[in-house]
Amino acid sequence: MQSDNAFRLYNEVIEPPLSDDELAAVNAADLDLAQRLGLVLTYCSQDRLEGHLEVTDKLLQPTGIVNGGVYCTIGETLASIAAVAATAKPAVGMSNSTDLLGSVKAGQRIDAVAEPVHTGKRTHLWRVNMSADGKLVAVTNLKLMILDR
Amino acid sequence: MQSDNAFRLYNEVIEPPLSDDELAAVNAADLDLAQRLGLVLTYCSQDRLEGHLEVTDKLLQPTGIVNGGVYCTIGETLASIAAVAATAKPAVGMSNSTDLLGSVKAGQRIDAVAEPVHTGKRTHLWRVNMSADGKLVAVTNLKLMILDR
Amino acid sequence: MQSDNAFRLYNEVIEPPLSDDELAAVNAADLDLAQRLGLVLTYCSQDRLEGHLEVTDKLLQPTGIVNGGVYCTIGETLASIAAVAATAKPAVGMSNSTDLLGSVKAGQRIDAVAEPVHTGKRTHLWRVNMSADGKLVAVTNLKLMILDR
Amino acid sequence: MQSDNAFRLYNEVIEPPLSDDELAAVNAADLDLAQRLGLVLTYCSQDRLEGHLEVTDKLLQPTGIVNGGVYCTIGETLASIAAVAATAKPAVGMSNSTDLLGSVKAGQRIDAVAEPVHTGKRTHLWRVNMSADGKLVAVTNLKLMILDR
Repeated sequence: MQSDNAFRLYNEVIEPPLSDDELAAVNAADLDLAQRLGLVLTYCSQDRLEGHLEVTDKLLQPTGIVNGGVYCTIGETLASIAAVAATAKPAVGMSNSTDLLGSVKAGQRIDAVAEPVHTGKRTHLWRVNMSADGKLVAVTNLKLMILDR
Repeated sequence: MQSDNAFRLYNEVIEPPLSDDELAAVNAADLDLAQRLGLVLTYCSQDRLEGHLEVTDKLLQPTGIVNGGVYCTIGETLASIAAVAATAKPAVGMSNSTDLLGSVKAGQRIDAVAEPVHTGKRTHLWRVNMSADGKLVAVTNLKLMILDR
Repeated sequence: MQSDNAFRLYNEVIEPPLSDDELAAVNAADLDLAQRLGLVLTYCSQDRLEGHLEVTDKLLQPTGIVNGGVYCTIGETLASIAAVAATAKPAVGMSNSTDLLGSVKAGQRIDAVAEPVHTGKRTHLWRVNMSADGKLVAVTNLKLMILDR
Repeated sequence: MQSDNAFRLYNEVIEPPLSDDELAAVNAADLDLAQRLGLVLTYCSQDRLEGHLEVTDKLLQPTGIVNGGVYCTIGETLASIAAVAATAKPAVGMSNSTDLLGSVKAGQRIDAVAEPVHTGKRTHLWRVNMSADGKLVAVTNLKLMILDR
């Protein structure tokens, strides 16, 4: 994410939201596990992130539904980017609490939205709601420590 | 995991522990996300599971350390297999609570051990401790619902 | 809560909401720890509960702010009543995950609202947001098992 | 806890463990909610705390078992004292994650032990196991922020 287009994400509070070109640059950067699993960022501002992921066979567990770790990973990644977008400072996940509420199969799409619950000086709590076909399937609450630059 | 060698894992309580041949069959089955990320199961009995994962670049997040979702996924997978090994019944993760305690880089190995905290009739709680170079780096507490066959 | 006025709470889905007389009967029943700590129920329907608690000295910890267990207890109680109000069935808390986001002192009031995140056949997830002077100070996510009557 | 006997608890790392006189002074101080609910501290060193609580009617919820908030409160208090005993610095609970694994009735005793999972410079994670009649009934994982004095 050192590319010119993505420059803003790690260097300033994201207001106004990232443009389509900036989003494309972040998505093309291939620097994060969640991207490699298929997560595409579609909106990024200082107080809201959105993304989605098309479920492929490789994300499943043996019974044919999405491995719960996928939701945790989407939540971890979106909330971490969100904390960076809100502060322009490095952020470290401290605890990832993900409730698994439904099952998703290959071919479905997981839509994810990250919103802040609490943004303090030293810690943030972001919530990431994930749904498929309009039904809530998982929620991540990620607590982060905000570091000095 | 329908191969002959792996037959026991989804069909009976795993006592005695899986043999080396049975472990090899499970590891070769390529049926789970965590396996695809590199998780290798090295011990499986009804009350303890062990595995490890060699960290490659693809598991990192942009600052060069392992994405927290990797620990969640290892915990989710090991605890889920553990519940199946303990009951011979299907098990569904309900909540994955993962504390992120240290950072790990490419080239290091994550060693994981799953042990039961509570094994009731309808719900289980398994804890998965993950360490690298002998230092605890993450802990997953996975609550599961045990289903009827 | 076996009094005549409170009859509906454990015997039917709470639609329409409890009347003022019914709320008064529940609050007078003195059957729950949270009530004894000061929690007053002010609204109860099948999909939303509200209550508040005036903070007294006995709820503090040694540094003079509310002991975090108070928020957990408010969350546990409101979410449990909520699940009963939504199902007319017994509900058992399985995991209480409470994020502590601010501090509250004696003389302040904690306002709490419980709303459903997920209401399945066998498990519910309720969220209880707690605030003081309009500032969010704690959030409980309570996972419950719904039992057969 | 400003009494002479309790002096060490907030002023130095607790090594050696508190003496019986020091424990008695802490228990007599009446400065914390958990004490008022009945928690008695029986052992306190820098890496382990023990306490117990005799269950009285006032701690129950309407169905006659201990309100889950009691376990959260015991966990919150023991883990907070533990972090102070280990660091001699103020500690603030950030998230209280309590798994509820069994039910306890009036007349039973809850025995609680706090042990460290992770003790970093800025954050600690303490685990509090609670049992009754030798059976594990609840586990609190409390994440704390360690403050500068």
